Amino acid sequence: MPEPTVNQHEFPNGLVLVAETMASVQSAAFSLLLPAGSAYEPVGLGGSASMLAEWITRGAGDLDSRELLTALDNLGVSHGEGAQTLHTSVSAATLGRNLIPALEIYADVLRRPHLDDEEIEPIRALALQNLQGLEDDPGSKVIYELRRRHFPDPWGRPSPGTPEGVKKATPDDLRAFHRSFYRPNGAILAVAGAIDFDRLKEAVARLFGDWEPQPEPSVQVKHVGPSRDHIVKEAQQTQIALAYPTVTVDHPDYYQARAMIGILGGYSSARLFTEVREKRGLCYTVYSSYEGQKDRAAVLCYAGTSTDRAQETLDVTLAEIDRLGKDGVEAEELDTMRAGLKSSLIMQQESSMSRAGSLASDWFYLGRVRSIDEIAGALDALTTASVGDFARSNTTEGMTILTLGPTPLTLPR
Amino acid sequence: MPEPTVNQHEFPNGLVLVAETMASVQSAAFSLLLPAGSAYEPVGLGGSASMLAEWITRGAGDLDSRELLTALDNLGVSHGEGAQTLHTSVSAATLGRNLIPALEIYADVLRRPHLDDEEIEPIRALALQNLQGLEDDPGSKVIYELRRRHFPDPWGRPSPGTPEGVKKATPDDLRAFHRSFYRPNGAILAVAGAIDFDRLKEAVARLFGDWEPQPEPSVQVKHVGPSRDHIVKEAQQTQIALAYPTVTVDHPDYYQARAMIGILGGYSSARLFTEVREKRGLCYTVYSSYEGQKDRAAVLCYAGTSTDRAQETLDVTLAEIDRLGKDGVEAEELDTMRAGLKSSLIMQQESSMSRAGSLASDWFYLGRVRSIDEIAGALDALTTASVGDFARSNTTEGMTILTLGPTPLTLPR
Repeated sequence: MPEPTVNQHEFPNGLVLVAETMASVQSAAFSLLLPAGSAYEPVGLGGSASMLAEWITRGAGDLDSRELLTALDNLGVSHGEGAQTLHTSVSAATLGRNLIPALEIYADVLRRPHLDDEEIEPIRALALQNLQGLEDDPGSKVIYELRRRHFPDPWGRPSPGTPEGVKKATPDDLRAFHRSFYRPNGAILAVAGAIDFDRLKEAVARLFGDWEPQPEPSVQVKHVGPSRDHIVKEAQQTQIALAYPTVTVDHPDYYQARAMIGILGGYSSARLFTEVREKRGLCYTVYSSYEGQKDRAAVLCYAGTSTDRAQETLDVTLAEIDRLGKDGVEAEELDTMRAGLKSSLIMQQESSMSRAGSLASDWFYLGRVRSIDEIAGALDALTTASVGDFARSNTTEGMTILTLGPTPLTLPR
Repeated sequence: MPEPTVNQHEFPNGLVLVAETMASVQSAAFSLLLPAGSAYEPVGLGGSASMLAEWITRGAGDLDSRELLTALDNLGVSHGEGAQTLHTSVSAATLGRNLIPALEIYADVLRRPHLDDEEIEPIRALALQNLQGLEDDPGSKVIYELRRRHFPDPWGRPSPGTPEGVKKATPDDLRAFHRSFYRPNGAILAVAGAIDFDRLKEAVARLFGDWEPQPEPSVQVKHVGPSRDHIVKEAQQTQIALAYPTVTVDHPDYYQARAMIGILGGYSSARLFTEVREKRGLCYTVYSSYEGQKDRAAVLCYAGTSTDRAQETLDVTLAEIDRLGKDGVEAEELDTMRAGLKSSLIMQQESSMSRAGSLASDWFYLGRVRSIDEIAGALDALTTASVGDFARSNTTEGMTILTLGPTPLTLPR
C-alpha cells in the first residue's frame, strides 16, 4: 500500500485545509470543524447551536430545503451536521469525484443558509424531541450530565441544550449566533481519500477564500459541579459515570495517559472488563476512555448496571482505579494495549472517513498531523516504569462521580 | 483500484468458505454465521443462545478465559460474538497477517470451549443485565417486540431472551445447545481483505475440516401476533414500529422492493424524512428499512416521537405508505435512490469488515456472491413503471403495528 501524503494550507482568513491523498480508495470524506459549539451559546439559550446546525440545511444558496437534501443524495453523500460542546461539525463521505461538488453545496449551507422563519417551529419541535429522547436514554444522559458537572462551564455544556433554551431561542438569536461563530478563523477542513490536493485547494479558495473572519469570542469560565451527585430516575438500571483530570493531547506524557486508560478499561481483557464484567457479571457495558479538550482532559469511566449491584460496581471500579495508581502496570498488559492500538491505527488508515476525522482532531489539538510512525514510535517507547510512574502521579483528585437511577449510592468522601 | 477476487469452497462437512482478496488493504476481517440463533432455543429457554455465545469465550482449548481474551487482544483483533434470531455469529477484524492466528483461536472457541460451570452465574447475571438495559432503551425494545409479533415463531424471537428463560437455563441445557447447533453444515465463513486464498483454505481445512456435521433441526412454525398491540411504558416518548410483508432477497422483484423502501424512508430526502421530520418536526428519528429472512421478508418502519404527536406521526407514516402504493414513484426519486445505493456500494467495497459481512449475507440468501456490477446493473434496470407496479402489488395486508409508551394510539382496522 503506498504511503499516504498529507498536505496542508492556511488561507489568509484563517481557515486551515489539511488533506491526505489515499491512493487505495475511490471514496473521499471531509470533516469540517467550526468553532461554533454549544460552549459559545448565550446564557439561557442552551440548544441553539444544535438548532442552527439543523436550520442551515433547510435551504441555502439557490436551493430550497428539499432541493438541497436531494442534491446531496444525488451525489451519493452520506453526511451529518451537528453541534458538540466545542465545535459545530459537518462530516461527509462520497466518491472522490463528487467531493468538490459536495463542498460547493456546503459552502452555501455554511455561508448562505436561507434561515427562513417558517422552518423554525419544526426545528424547535425536533430539538425538544431530541431532549425527550435523551430522557429515555439514561446511558447517554448520564455522560452529558457528568461532563456538565466535571468541566468548568461552558466546556461541559450538553449540545442538546435545555427545554427552556430551546423554547426561548428566537430566529434572530440563531441568526446572530450564525454571524458570530460560523467563521473561517478557527475552522479546520480535513479531507482524506481519492483527491488531488491542488484541485482541492483551488476549490476551497474559490468557495471559502473570501469568507470574512470574525473576532475571537471571550469566554467566561466558571466552576459548576457538584463533584458528587445523583439524578433520581425511575429506571431498571443505575448508570454510573465518573471523571478525573489527566494530561492534554499536547502533553509529553500523553501516551502514558492513553496507556493507563487503555489498561484500565480500553479493550476486552482490560482490568475493568475482567473485574467488573467477566468475573462478577456486574454489568454488560463498562469502559474507561480519554476525553480531551484543548486545555483540559479527563479519564472517564462508565458502567450501567442493575440497581442492586450498582454499589458493588462502583466500589470495584474505584478499587481498580486505586490499584492502578498504587501498583502500576504489567509488561503483558502494556504489550496487549500496544498491539490493540497499533492494529486499530493501521485499520483506521484504510477508511477515508476515519482519516478525515483524525486529521481534523490532530490539527485541532496539536496544530499538525501525526504520522502513523510517530504514534507507533511513541507507543514503542512506553515502559512499565514510565506508565507506572505516570499512573502514580495522575491522582484522582478532582474526581466527579454522578449516578442516575432509582436510588443514590454511597459515594467516597 | 484492482478488481477484487472472490473464491469459494464447500468442505465435505458442509462448511462454506467464501473469501474476497482485496489488494488495497492491510487488514482482513471475517464474519462467521452459525445456524445457532435464538430461533433454535428450546421452548422456555429464551436467551440461552446469547448466554452460550458469551460462555464459549470464557476459556477454550489450552487457554483460560483471561488468556483467551488477551491472546485476541495481542493479535489486535477487534471482535464480537453474539446470537441473533437466525444465527450465532462471530465477526472479527485485524491485520491480514494475524487473520489465521485469530481463526486458530476461534476454532477452539467454537469447537472446544471449556464451558466451565463456575462461569455460568456471571454470565446469567450479564444476560439479566442486558434484558434490564433493554427496558431502559425503548427504541430497541419496540423493534424486538415488533419482530416477535410480526414473524411466525420462532423467526421473530428476540435474542436477549426472557428473564424466565435466562433464569432457568442450566449449564447442561447450554451444553446440549452447543452440541446440536454449533455445526459446520449450514455454517458460512466469509473472509475479506489482505489474504491469500490457498493458505486460508488450507488453514480452514486444518481447523474446521474434521468438525462433525449434525442433523438439521426440525422447526415448528406458528403464528404469534397480535397484529395490533401497545406496550404500556412510562416514558417521555412513544415508539412506533410497523412491519408488512414484501419479497425475499432471491425474488426477481427484490430490487424493486429495495427501491420502494429506499424512496419511502431510506435517505435524507426520502418521503418519510420530508413529511414527518422536515415539514412537521414530528420526530427526530424516522426510517423505513428492509428486514430479510430466507423465507420471508418485511418492510419495517420506525419512529420515536413525543406522546402528544405520536398519533399524527403514525397517521402521516401510514398515509405515505398508502400514497406509494397508489401513486408510485417519480423519476427523480429513483435517480436519488440509485445514486445513494451505488455510492454506498462502492464505499462498502473499501472496508474489509463490511465486505466480509456482505459476502456472508449474500451466501446465506442466495448461495452465491453478487458482484458490484450485477447490483449496479439491476439498479440501472429499474424504471418508475416497474417500481410503481411493484409498490401497487405490494399491499400492506398482514401489517403489524406496535406502539410503546404511556398511552395507546388509534390504530387502523
